[in-house]
Amino acid sequence: MSIGFYAPTNVTFGAGAEDKVAEVLKGYGAEKVLVHFGGGSVKRSGLLDKVEKSLTSAGIGFIELGGVVPNPRVSLVRKGIELVNNEGIDFILAVGGGSVLDSAKAIGYGAYGGGDVWDFYCGKRKVEGTVPVGCILTLSATGSEMSDSSVITNDETDPVYKRGVSTDFGRVKFSLLDPELTYTVSKYQTASGSVDIMMHTLERYFHQGYALDFTDELSFTLLREVIKNTPIALEHPDDYDARANLMWCGSLSHNGLMAVGNSNKGDWACHQIEHELSAEYDVAHGAGLAAVWGSWARYVLDTDPDRFVKLGKGVFGESDPVKTIEKFEEFFRSIDMPTDIKGLGLEFDEAACRKAALGVTFQDARTIGNFKVLKTEDIFNIYMMASGLK
Amino acid sequence: MSIGFYAPTNVTFGAGAEDKVAEVLKGYGAEKVLVHFGGGSVKRSGLLDKVEKSLTSAGIGFIELGGVVPNPRVSLVRKGIELVNNEGIDFILAVGGGSVLDSAKAIGYGAYGGGDVWDFYCGKRKVEGTVPVGCILTLSATGSEMSDSSVITNDETDPVYKRGVSTDFGRVKFSLLDPELTYTVSKYQTASGSVDIMMHTLERYFHQGYALDFTDELSFTLLREVIKNTPIALEHPDDYDARANLMWCGSLSHNGLMAVGNSNKGDWACHQIEHELSAEYDVAHGAGLAAVWGSWARYVLDTDPDRFVKLGKGVFGESDPVKTIEKFEEFFRSIDMPTDIKGLGLEFDEAACRKAALGVTFQDARTIGNFKVLKTEDIFNIYMMASGLK
Repeated sequence: MSIGFYAPTNVTFGAGAEDKVAEVLKGYGAEKVLVHFGGGSVKRSGLLDKVEKSLTSAGIGFIELGGVVPNPRVSLVRKGIELVNNEGIDFILAVGGGSVLDSAKAIGYGAYGGGDVWDFYCGKRKVEGTVPVGCILTLSATGSEMSDSSVITNDETDPVYKRGVSTDFGRVKFSLLDPELTYTVSKYQTASGSVDIMMHTLERYFHQGYALDFTDELSFTLLREVIKNTPIALEHPDDYDARANLMWCGSLSHNGLMAVGNSNKGDWACHQIEHELSAEYDVAHGAGLAAVWGSWARYVLDTDPDRFVKLGKGVFGESDPVKTIEKFEEFFRSIDMPTDIKGLGLEFDEAACRKAALGVTFQDARTIGNFKVLKTEDIFNIYMMASGLK
Repeated sequence: MSIGFYAPTNVTFGAGAEDKVAEVLKGYGAEKVLVHFGGGSVKRSGLLDKVEKSLTSAGIGFIELGGVVPNPRVSLVRKGIELVNNEGIDFILAVGGGSVLDSAKAIGYGAYGGGDVWDFYCGKRKVEGTVPVGCILTLSATGSEMSDSSVITNDETDPVYKRGVSTDFGRVKFSLLDPELTYTVSKYQTASGSVDIMMHTLERYFHQGYALDFTDELSFTLLREVIKNTPIALEHPDDYDARANLMWCGSLSHNGLMAVGNSNKGDWACHQIEHELSAEYDVAHGAGLAAVWGSWARYVLDTDPDRFVKLGKGVFGESDPVKTIEKFEEFFRSIDMPTDIKGLGLEFDEAACRKAALGVTFQDARTIGNFKVLKTEDIFNIYMMASGLK
């Protein structure tokens, strides 16, 4: 059996999509909403105010919970769960990017399931339902607006842990996608978001076993589209076309489409290798992925060079696999993304590489990857390469 | 506002997908199922037997209703509605191709809504719910397994009418897509199905207004994939790759993906022009589309040649719009599909063209098309061109 497709999120797309928020919430029978958001940007832009006025006009009650940070924290999730439980909240509205969405999903799981919400993220319990979640997206990156995943950082432990959970209960009910809301995203976050988008497709592309050609070709199309539109969005932040293409690329890259018909869900080693960096050092997820991908690719290339050849041809018209890796790195650098750990502003020595590798494998308790299965020693080597030490 | 995306159907994909039928139905709480199918092929292949054994083992009751024909009839739909209402049926399982699916959807609407089911198809009433439907697909063509549409022919009137209704209630709960079940599809039906798949994307591609570049590029990828895989499936009917690519192309071509971000849902004139042929003369839908598309394309070309240029470049690497139309027609002929009405085995004179054109516009009561809005006279001209009379 191959990977199927299940993406039930109702997507409204286009300029002004957020104007539908009250109407859509009414359709789900929402009466009291937790409006969840991050920092001040949704306040400064007037978006939050606009949303809350819509809710008020429609007679929908709400309570605010702001303060979500990149690599969202379980401590704020616990606050959200308390609010949902104590204030009769029946719907959670995420207004923001992937971190806000992931935090909203976690609140949904915890409020529905009771007990310690971290249990779901460290694998102790399975998610068996959720308070319904919808979103107004303000950043093209994580794909959380259609994906089944949520990644949370436990800031109550030392070292901190960053863990993800994937479940169909994480498919939000609706996503309002207005490309214009991403006009104000900074150059760095735009570029980092584009890398994240590309990686969700690349991680699925690299796997052992059967690959459906149509899915490969859709993947190449998506990657070409991100490569084409990111520089435009960086130069002209208010270019609707560029922002719209990137926004929809973000959703399709992580809603499962790019694995359909394949024999498994992909490699995902780079995500694990990067999570260790962003959990500990709070780097931007996309930038962290750009910093390690090239080293990962060179390390695993020999496993199946043909897969790299097909990728290169499909994305760059390039049939040399090493040059294909270089072309991805050149693209990352062209949008000011790092291609090594130093570029993240971190100084990694051998001990840091060793520590991070052990962190990824939960102290040698698991392997990661599917295209090539990686043990602690392999991950150590990749960190060493990405640190210029090998 | 642009076209959004809502495709909640849970798709299981791959060899043996149909083995999950009882488990999936149990998940929806089905207790008594209407097993709806067409002619003898699902009996001869043993598929029906296998499905019914699964249901019996799982303690799920069922009643059979076979006999769906291509261009499915409202008379059989009425029988199905009676069975659902009188026998306590709580789920409809379509086992077959698009006709069986469309018939199953109509039964669902009628059994839920009461009254005359044809009202939904001639626009007298809106669909407001359905008895849930799921499917095991045996033919890659109509995309009904993920689409919101159902097309039914009223065989109780003279002339007969073929009418479609689109509603989110038409999104079936689940689709079990096993490419191996299409190995036995005839060459003619395979080719006709491929044309149908291409047309669902082409109809969306041609429209006036804003087009999202990513969606255009996805459309070209899908069209290239159908063009690549159809000849392989014709030569090697049991080539898993070719059948799997075509099957997934069929679903994505008509689930709405190929219009996301665009300002409207497309042209659809060719479908209307073809429906008139297949309602009256019972030709295969895809073959009918192939027979009229080239004439439609030449007739509307001047409206916006650039749209044809982009299509030609994306699909064939061809920048001349007239040559692009010819290349589509060459492809149709290469898979033994007709490119004129004569090729359908019909002799159309001027009177027949006039009658058909008036049929399309409901006796001059409507226009069709969006890329170019067509009146009765335009449609008459297109029929004349497709008949070699102009």
